[in-house]
Amino acid sequence: MISTPASCPLCTPSSEKVLWSDDQFRVIGVTDPQLPGFIRLISQSHIAEVSDLSAQAQNRMFSLLVRIESAMRQILAPDKVNLASLGNQVPHLHWHIIPRWKDDLFFPDSIWSAPKQRQNSVSITALRMERAARADDLWKALPAVCTAVR
Amino acid sequence: MISTPASCPLCTPSSEKVLWSDDQFRVIGVTDPQLPGFIRLISQSHIAEVSDLSAQAQNRMFSLLVRIESAMRQILAPDKVNLASLGNQVPHLHWHIIPRWKDDLFFPDSIWSAPKQRQNSVSITALRMERAARADDLWKALPAVCTAVR
Repeated sequence: MISTPASCPLCTPSSEKVLWSDDQFRVIGVTDPQLPGFIRLISQSHIAEVSDLSAQAQNRMFSLLVRIESAMRQILAPDKVNLASLGNQVPHLHWHIIPRWKDDLFFPDSIWSAPKQRQNSVSITALRMERAARADDLWKALPAVCTAVR
Repeated sequence: MISTPASCPLCTPSSEKVLWSDDQFRVIGVTDPQLPGFIRLISQSHIAEVSDLSAQAQNRMFSLLVRIESAMRQILAPDKVNLASLGNQVPHLHWHIIPRWKDDLFFPDSIWSAPKQRQNSVSITALRMERAARADDLWKALPAVCTAVR
């Protein structure tokens, strides 16, 4: 079950929407129609835990996390932001940065919870389209947001 | 559903095992026989998101998070550490810091996932007792670990 670098899907991703990257981290957009604007922040090196990073890399990672959260709040205005570094399935350090709405499929549970709270989170088509459009805006804004990190 | 300070269970906790606290944060031990050593880091002020904190408080919070993760790894040696700030149920900033073992009830899923992967995570009594003892050690170590944060 534990990935090695050779088989790790985050070391050798098959397809990713990379919004920004440098030698330490990359930021990807997750395509999930139920959770528009879902972002992942991924370590470029195959380590499992935050405390495996150098202090310098930890600081940059947390700065990126806060910058992404701030951009997400400004652009998407979700009801809540969820931040999680789990890595049980893929023990390669990555953060889920998830905009949550009270009418999404899982709220107020985690997105990993089951059963789902409702069949279709965004039943109003106009609202769904508006959120998808704002998710696009977030994707477009993130390269500049992340590049500005120290 | 959204708590106000008057009704917020993290503003007015009914019972908590407080291991350390100052004016900005407190660290509590969560009593869960299936997840020995589960810790929460809680903002003392009623804010919802990390980016609602001052930059100074963010830095201290992340330093506490890494210190607690490091102590957890040193003392409990879990297979993985899970970090999560969700707050959908209680929108008052708090981090779950969860030691995970491959034989726990949920692994490799999140602790919020269902159905559970196995009926009883720690079927070997000696192993369960050993983990509970190490969780006690973690609780004892955390006050010094947290006090040393800048």
